[in-house]
Amino acid sequence: MIYLDNSATTHPHEEVLRSYQKVADVYYANPSSVHRFGSEVERLLQQSRTQAAQLFGVHSREVIFTSGGTEGNNMAIKGIAFMHQNRGKHMITSSVEHPSVMEAFRALESLGFEVTYLPVDSEGKVQPSDVSDAMRKDTILVSIMSVNNELGTIQPIREIGQIVRPFPKAFFHVDHVQGLGKIDLPIKEYAIDLCTVSGHKIHGLKGTGALIVQNNVSLFPLLHGGGQELEARAGTENLAGNVAFVKALRLLLEKKEDKRAHMSSLRNQLWHDLIENQQVVINSPKNGAPHILNFSVPGYRPEVMIHALGEEDIFISTKSACSSKEPDVSAILQACGLNSDRTTSALRVSFSYENTEDELRTFVQTLNSKIEKLQATMGR
Amino acid sequence: MIYLDNSATTHPHEEVLRSYQKVADVYYANPSSVHRFGSEVERLLQQSRTQAAQLFGVHSREVIFTSGGTEGNNMAIKGIAFMHQNRGKHMITSSVEHPSVMEAFRALESLGFEVTYLPVDSEGKVQPSDVSDAMRKDTILVSIMSVNNELGTIQPIREIGQIVRPFPKAFFHVDHVQGLGKIDLPIKEYAIDLCTVSGHKIHGLKGTGALIVQNNVSLFPLLHGGGQELEARAGTENLAGNVAFVKALRLLLEKKEDKRAHMSSLRNQLWHDLIENQQVVINSPKNGAPHILNFSVPGYRPEVMIHALGEEDIFISTKSACSSKEPDVSAILQACGLNSDRTTSALRVSFSYENTEDELRTFVQTLNSKIEKLQATMGR
Ligand SMILES: Cc1ncc(COP(=O)(O)O)c(C=O)c1O
Ligand SMILES: Cc1ncc(COP(=O)(O)O)c(C=O)c1O
Repeated sequence: MIYLDNSATTHPHEEVLRSYQKVADVYYANPSSVHRFGSEVERLLQQSRTQAAQLFGVHSREVIFTSGGTEGNNMAIKGIAFMHQNRGKHMITSSVEHPSVMEAFRALESLGFEVTYLPVDSEGKVQPSDVSDAMRKDTILVSIMSVNNELGTIQPIREIGQIVRPFPKAFFHVDHVQGLGKIDLPIKEYAIDLCTVSGHKIHGLKGTGALIVQNNVSLFPLLHGGGQELEARAGTENLAGNVAFVKALRLLLEKKEDKRAHMSSLRNQLWHDLIENQQVVINSPKNGAPHILNFSVPGYRPEVMIHALGEEDIFISTKSACSSKEPDVSAILQACGLNSDRTTSALRVSFSYENTEDELRTFVQTLNSKIEKLQATMGR
Repeated sequence: MIYLDNSATTHPHEEVLRSYQKVADVYYANPSSVHRFGSEVERLLQQSRTQAAQLFGVHSREVIFTSGGTEGNNMAIKGIAFMHQNRGKHMITSSVEHPSVMEAFRALESLGFEVTYLPVDSEGKVQPSDVSDAMRKDTILVSIMSVNNELGTIQPIREIGQIVRPFPKAFFHVDHVQGLGKIDLPIKEYAIDLCTVSGHKIHGLKGTGALIVQNNVSLFPLLHGGGQELEARAGTENLAGNVAFVKALRLLLEKKEDKRAHMSSLRNQLWHDLIENQQVVINSPKNGAPHILNFSVPGYRPEVMIHALGEEDIFISTKSACSSKEPDVSAILQACGLNSDRTTSALRVSFSYENTEDELRTFVQTLNSKIEKLQATMGR
């Protein structure tokens, strides 16, 4: 199997699974229980929070464990909206966000909030000047992703942070689900108030993740209850999941420069090999994130291509699930202003640092021969 | 170790952990991915949903997998409130609900909803006639737990369902987290629209659970995004967690009559042994759920007692975590009208079908000797 769909999800590391297994089996008490067994689990929970905080360069009070990226995004966006609506009801985001951001904003619109969806350039990039222009006195939130999940486009988060910082009523949220480990994002330095990350995109487990919440930011919780997770996210804590998340994070950041260099070199190789085929057009920006390369083969439906490759045990993807009701059309590529030839034929290859040059070579060869075969059957 | 805190959480079954491990390692693709590997995972997801549905006696379209009981409760209560507020803004619950219900309602009060908190009798029971009296034309939700987590009190869910059924605008939600496996709750027959269950209370894993949502009930999602879980709960699905939840459910319901009979007999034995000690007062109702026995030792702080037992590796509990800001006081026992001697000295023993008579005998002997010792040090 050649798995090139790592932006959709990744294979959990053996060590991550082993940690999970051990903690779930041995340290199963409820950390809220008063007895010694409960306290021991509480201590381990605190320890994993501290480790996560160190890895993110924040205080342990600023790490809220969640069930994943979708929860983190909804918690940040709705949490700010409901908590701070007395300050204002205007929010800003981009037109290329993940559905868990986009749909959260649409839901808030149905409840009376006003949302500005910023345009992007042909590479999917938000212009900082557009953020400046959109800022208002009643703006309470700006939410921009660090790395786009379809294109790999890196957004100018530092610049946007500088624009938002002087507005005392506005918070800055970054969906860092695709960026984690792939690009650096110094949370404090970039003036990020809320930052979403997810475990299963970094060889961790599904159902795990975190929302980093800067100390002075209060949220209306999505989950009320027993006051767990610093009153921000109630529910019996999933210690095993949290430990597994921190383990995945630690492994990800070990030798991260080498990992990124390896992925960049895979991406360069793939780019170079793909454009040899005259039928392929690259959609990703040259200086995108190291793990995503999006391209179109105009005239060929992505589903057909994906199934053809699947026959050879090669797995790649198309647009993000459910981001558009029209089959095959990428709303993200549409937002970039690409023509329908390209928006309806886009394919995404996304790798992990565990992928190899050989795998990519096999992928390109197989792709080329599948295109040829399809061309023949279509009689072109 | 003698673990008697099974209402707080349980030890995951070996088989449950094994299923989790296998599925997380092998079937890791994203079910939203178009390729064959994704479809295979999608098929397994659908299969586990169907299995869960069969075990609950509902349709597979009616099973929404969640991250646990707190999420299920918040999703049901806030989901109805936000979705159906145009029908009315009145809701009914009891004064002995779990914090994940109670605090969700308090949060909705802060957003302009009106909530009636029904009183309970000295055993913690809601009177159906009180539900009748509280029903109004603008009532959109009645939420009552099946089994109380501190006392084990079983609520008259069938009767309440009959009262709510004729009101076309009102939905009926049951927090069945403590009742699952311990009492029967035929969801359709009892006219329950929404039913919350949690994995970690039934030897499953933390971070797993489900909300059963009858077909005709629409909810405002807590988690918007990619439309997963029948549009009710977005986020990349945790297939391994869901499979583990269904496995725990299946094991729980195997020979359930034997398991209940065993727990009932443990409870009777414990009751009998405890009341031999003149200092002990039982708080649980005689005909409560088979796995919970709550009692007070007036004059002794529960924390002290729990720590003393903890020294001997025996783990029991007191009131539910964070259900009251006053240390040691049980808000549930207060709601039952018990005097402060009892509300400030309550202890909860909760068992699994895996506990033994011997363990309970050792527990009572140890408790008695600890009381004697404390009595001596306190010079009584
Ligand atoms: C950019 C981005 N944000 C958020 C998410 C949602 O994360 P999760 O799958 O953990 O819910 C994803 C992945 O699906 C993503 O790519
Ligand atoms: C009655 C009741 N409801 C809800 C919950 C919350 O469930 P979870 O711990 O899965 O969030 C619990 C347990 O904590 C409970 O006992």
